[in-house]
Amino acid sequence: MITTRRPTIGVFDSGFGGLTVLKALLEVVPEADYVYFGDTARLPYGSKSAETVARYALQASRHLEQNRAELLVIACNTATALALDRITQAANVPVVGVVEPGAEAAAAMSKNKRVVVIGTEATISSHAYRKAITERGLEVREKACPLLVPLVEEGWVDHPVTEQVARIYFNEAFSGGFEDADVLVLGCTHYPLLKPLLRRVAPDHASIVDSAESTAAAVARQIRQLLPPSNNEERRITPRLRFFATDSVEKFRRLGERFLGHTIDGVEHVDLKE
Amino acid sequence: MITTRRPTIGVFDSGFGGLTVLKALLEVVPEADYVYFGDTARLPYGSKSAETVARYALQASRHLEQNRAELLVIACNTATALALDRITQAANVPVVGVVEPGAEAAAAMSKNKRVVVIGTEATISSHAYRKAITERGLEVREKACPLLVPLVEEGWVDHPVTEQVARIYFNEAFSGGFEDADVLVLGCTHYPLLKPLLRRVAPDHASIVDSAESTAAAVARQIRQLLPPSNNEERRITPRLRFFATDSVEKFRRLGERFLGHTIDGVEHVDLKE
Repeated sequence: MITTRRPTIGVFDSGFGGLTVLKALLEVVPEADYVYFGDTARLPYGSKSAETVARYALQASRHLEQNRAELLVIACNTATALALDRITQAANVPVVGVVEPGAEAAAAMSKNKRVVVIGTEATISSHAYRKAITERGLEVREKACPLLVPLVEEGWVDHPVTEQVARIYFNEAFSGGFEDADVLVLGCTHYPLLKPLLRRVAPDHASIVDSAESTAAAVARQIRQLLPPSNNEERRITPRLRFFATDSVEKFRRLGERFLGHTIDGVEHVDLKE
Repeated sequence: MITTRRPTIGVFDSGFGGLTVLKALLEVVPEADYVYFGDTARLPYGSKSAETVARYALQASRHLEQNRAELLVIACNTATALALDRITQAANVPVVGVVEPGAEAAAAMSKNKRVVVIGTEATISSHAYRKAITERGLEVREKACPLLVPLVEEGWVDHPVTEQVARIYFNEAFSGGFEDADVLVLGCTHYPLLKPLLRRVAPDHASIVDSAESTAAAVARQIRQLLPPSNNEERRITPRLRFFATDSVEKFRRLGERFLGHTIDGVEHVDLKE
């Protein structure tokens, strides 16, 4: 029997949203173990400067590396948009963000080269998706949807109010030349929880790119370049998961389970100097 | 002619909400000048520990005192709930929070001694209103309304979605023995912007206590104890206003005007060590 070494992947987010990326990773890279860092005491990153976000993200990255992460996933659109370059420079391991994989999937999927991206105010204002998508020769309409994250956090993932809000946002996004946009990028790691509802409300001709899934696929490609192929036995082992949070571990467990889709055990509290 | 000295009042909030308190103050204490501090780079305070909130609030208080504040208004429910005692101990000037004045007004107004308080998750979890209201011999139902702040910040202050959300929250709040509660306390400084809508949706038998107005009235009483009565001339002078913000001054100006109800000039940026 050939034994392959199980890699450890570090996943970082300002809060819970990155757990949707972890969920996607568990499906496509089950032969790895995971350490997750949620900087819940300092969220949201959206109103913070690029310097501050970079500093926070580097602290988290260091903590994940100390806990054996051999590859870092920045599962946070704001941190990716504002600080990916700095994190990549400072980290001692490869780093994957959420924006490029989503842009790449959109470019591969769009036939008429017109794409709508939705995200938080901070992500949209950064124009990180606009840059990544226009570089690939497509036209892009960006639309901030600030109410969707609080609606997810309220648990209203299949609620008439959320449907009405999404309808209003989509009416504004798919307009002014973008009526026929054929790809909708979910540029926020909270949005995968709304996917069934958003699928119902979005125009039928628009395919949905879930940046959490695209990122997981990009990580799968990268991890298979770094390591020998895993055998079936390796893939049958349940991944080990460790969770770190900077705010209440009880709240992390409770809210986090909705994002991850199954129970979360043993969250460890981390107190980072500010 | 007797000249009275114009006092300077410092108003502190984690963001923009406290501007509704400043607006109420300008109406009832026009004989004062004002310095306002919005800690916009570090909002929201809701997910932070009491220690962190106290530390931030003390930095802001010190800045306001250095800028001549002779009385401090903590125009932030979270900071009041978590750190009022510590701020009061550390400050060199009198301090007024937003919780006690709202509780006092509710106690004075309620005939059947049953009160509903709405606020953010953080304020409601702190049970600061429950404590202040039950101490006065009333029964209280607290209800967290986490979507109302993002709806105000989206500008949907008179929108069918907001009305629907408020209706859902009120159905839950005015139930289980509190159907006949005759006072509704707005325990968040964002909510005054929703007052016309909330008045429409709340039960007809419930009077609304706006904690911004109650706080302004409490400040008026206190300032008149500290200083000789102002003459009519003093009251006719337009108050001088200075604004400090820790994040973008442009964003403060733009968003802040909606809360204050008139134009905001000359916001000064402050960079606080963390």
